[in-house]
Amino acid sequence: MKLENAVKVSWIADYIDAKVVGDPNFEVTGLNEIHKVREGDLTFVDLEKYYDRSLNSAATVILLDKEVPCPDGKILLVSDDPFSGYVKLVKHFHPFHPSNKMISDSAIIGEGTAIQPGVFIGDEVRIGKNCIIHANVTIYDHTLIGDNVIIQSGTVIGGDGFYFKKRGGRELVHDKLESCGRVVIERDVEVGANCAIDRGVSGDTILGAGTKLDNLVQIGHGAEIGRNCLFAAQVGVGGKTIIEDNVTLWGQVGVSKDLLIESNTVVLAQTGVPSSLKGGKMYFGYPAGEARNKRRELGWIKRIPEIWEKVKDL
Amino acid sequence: MKLENAVKVSWIADYIDAKVVGDPNFEVTGLNEIHKVREGDLTFVDLEKYYDRSLNSAATVILLDKEVPCPDGKILLVSDDPFSGYVKLVKHFHPFHPSNKMISDSAIIGEGTAIQPGVFIGDEVRIGKNCIIHANVTIYDHTLIGDNVIIQSGTVIGGDGFYFKKRGGRELVHDKLESCGRVVIERDVEVGANCAIDRGVSGDTILGAGTKLDNLVQIGHGAEIGRNCLFAAQVGVGGKTIIEDNVTLWGQVGVSKDLLIESNTVVLAQTGVPSSLKGGKMYFGYPAGEARNKRRELGWIKRIPEIWEKVKDL
Amino acid sequence: MKLENAVKVSWIADYIDAKVVGDPNFEVTGLNEIHKVREGDLTFVDLEKYYDRSLNSAATVILLDKEVPCPDGKILLVSDDPFSGYVKLVKHFHPFHPSNKMISDSAIIGEGTAIQPGVFIGDEVRIGKNCIIHANVTIYDHTLIGDNVIIQSGTVIGGDGFYFKKRGGRELVHDKLESCGRVVIERDVEVGANCAIDRGVSGDTILGAGTKLDNLVQIGHGAEIGRNCLFAAQVGVGGKTIIEDNVTLWGQVGVSKDLLIESNTVVLAQTGVPSSLKGGKMYFGYPAGEARNKRRELGWIKRIPEIWEKVKDL
Repeated sequence: MKLENAVKVSWIADYIDAKVVGDPNFEVTGLNEIHKVREGDLTFVDLEKYYDRSLNSAATVILLDKEVPCPDGKILLVSDDPFSGYVKLVKHFHPFHPSNKMISDSAIIGEGTAIQPGVFIGDEVRIGKNCIIHANVTIYDHTLIGDNVIIQSGTVIGGDGFYFKKRGGRELVHDKLESCGRVVIERDVEVGANCAIDRGVSGDTILGAGTKLDNLVQIGHGAEIGRNCLFAAQVGVGGKTIIEDNVTLWGQVGVSKDLLIESNTVVLAQTGVPSSLKGGKMYFGYPAGEARNKRRELGWIKRIPEIWEKVKDL
Repeated sequence: MKLENAVKVSWIADYIDAKVVGDPNFEVTGLNEIHKVREGDLTFVDLEKYYDRSLNSAATVILLDKEVPCPDGKILLVSDDPFSGYVKLVKHFHPFHPSNKMISDSAIIGEGTAIQPGVFIGDEVRIGKNCIIHANVTIYDHTLIGDNVIIQSGTVIGGDGFYFKKRGGRELVHDKLESCGRVVIERDVEVGANCAIDRGVSGDTILGAGTKLDNLVQIGHGAEIGRNCLFAAQVGVGGKTIIEDNVTLWGQVGVSKDLLIESNTVVLAQTGVPSSLKGGKMYFGYPAGEARNKRRELGWIKRIPEIWEKVKDL
Repeated sequence: MKLENAVKVSWIADYIDAKVVGDPNFEVTGLNEIHKVREGDLTFVDLEKYYDRSLNSAATVILLDKEVPCPDGKILLVSDDPFSGYVKLVKHFHPFHPSNKMISDSAIIGEGTAIQPGVFIGDEVRIGKNCIIHANVTIYDHTLIGDNVIIQSGTVIGGDGFYFKKRGGRELVHDKLESCGRVVIERDVEVGANCAIDRGVSGDTILGAGTKLDNLVQIGHGAEIGRNCLFAAQVGVGGKTIIEDNVTLWGQVGVSKDLLIESNTVVLAQTGVPSSLKGGKMYFGYPAGEARNKRRELGWIKRIPEIWEKVKDL
């Protein structure tokens, strides 16, 4: 998330009760998760194993839970609870505003676009030309939609990412990392009925131009789907997974989070994908394997009784 | 379901055309399925194998299809068709009332709670403080929601349970057991977009405090989910299953009905759970097994060709 | 799709820039996909391997991409791009009309039917007597619903079929085959919450009398479901699949497109069905097999270590 106006490090330190190591007058220009940071951004880290990655990222300000040697040009904010401090900042700079209108006055809707009854369109949404948004669709604040997009009824675009952090103590509870990213839907996309496309936690969730989703599809926070993909009904894609161009996922496929599925991949129905996939091949099974190998495996399983006959008297 | 006013056994016998064995003046105080009965309740049974359980349950009045020896203090209602009689009673005491308002006048909504546009809230619903109910959510009659609850768009809370009984005859048909239970959502729960949480058929469906559901999750009638559970997208939980505290279900997991999943269980993505699970362990596969055993099984399958090489010439 | 008024072949040839082989004055009475054609219809074909099937179908007019010998009584329309020509015709004769009312003036709703708030009902919809359409349901144009039907909240009836054709070239893109069929829901059907029932691409999607669907169920374009079926939550059925009477699909079952599932079949939870199933049996696993065989297979897998013990020293 880019901040509308830059904010001094000293103000932030005061607001979240953190100690500054470095220049307190530096002006922070954005808040982002580690995989999305740019120069001028603040990011947070609360696991020692990720210190190096954060300190050597593009971020200028690192909010963390321990004072460590500070690389040149970086500024540290040291706090007992970096996660809560980060969430407090996101809520401050990206607060939830209740609506009382089905279509926000700040939404911009292109020529030739049909908005059917019962559609909710939040603040600062932009929708291109010649789109059809069918009845009872929900489009959260800040969503961007290109030209010639069709969204079938009941679909929800821009819900909060499912991102919780366990906190121990008297009772195990889960703190929510507030979402401040967006959903960006490029031109010529079609989304089926009753899908759920979450916005990014800090970056954007993207559906590339020409991609088509069937009904009841789940796209997690910050996932980036390429161009001209086809996802059949009830597919689920986890948060921050990157799917390149021309990928076909058949019905009920599940793809885990933080993966890379290369272009021209085909994944057959009900396959479970727990790790990244090389492009240009066909996969199936759980865990997903190349289809020809998986078919051979199924064949071998059927031959176990034959093997048993050979060895039972040994 | 507790009755608003107690009703004499004789009135019920007359209304559903049943014969009373026992005190016709006893006043029935509730209607419940066998797993939820209390003293004063009426329950029904139409399979001989469940007679004992029903006759020895806490229920005072048992509606059944055959006259049997009646234990002390119990009252029998004997009818040719106990199921239809029970459904007739539920419909009488818990009729469906059509609405003509998006938010019922009888709903009570706490301070600081935001109800976004397009939300339907039925009769006698109570929602706590500081909740966010996003656009186009549907909340059926009698739902209870605690403080600090967030419900993403498109979600349906309190739909009828999927509970049908086959009836033979000229054509096989399915009679519906009318739902008269509720959904109870405790404080600090978050429910994702386009989920479906059915109400109980006679008792309550419960989401315990601090539990978080991702998008497109299905919770069947009368399921009881503990505190601080995490269910990823597209999970399905069958009717009347009990899931204890701190249980994590990853994406597309399916849990069958009438099971017990003990606390601190982790179930990996796409796993199918056809029977109850001991707590504190990690599971995967179909049917769900302990993860370390299942991983070994997958390893063994890959070794079948090696075994074949050893035995093919025997 | 039947045309409201018959249209001369010569007009069509002109409109889509095709060459007529045969009688240009013949009056076309319908547009249909090959599996649904009747005498008087126009159909299209653009794969040489389907030429024979199309030329010998009931269709009178065949739109195709090559001049071939024309059987007696048939008329050819020869075009460089039959798919696009067909889509242009469908859009012309079955245009999308934006709505500005939640319930269309042309909808006909039977006596005793309750339409809850937030329901969208499109043009020319007919709903029978004594139905309950719960809040926030969407019913697209031309849907037919019989008596005593219950539809839980959030469900979408009649969304566009997911039917795309890859077009090569500078960039691989997908052309959409516009849907012009309907959804037909017979009497005594119940549909759960947040389901998606697509309309047929040219014919009808049918839910037979007495069939009951649980929540989050997907029914693809042109699927025909028989009478008194039970589909549990999160089931998906692919386009044009035929499911006969009294079929039970348990939770999260996926059935591929273009299949036949015979009557009285039971498919256990999470099963994947890639090919047609004979009736009267119980199936599970991926790919679906008879349950008793699949259970034996699972047993054999567990015995591989025992086999290994016997052969490891060979």
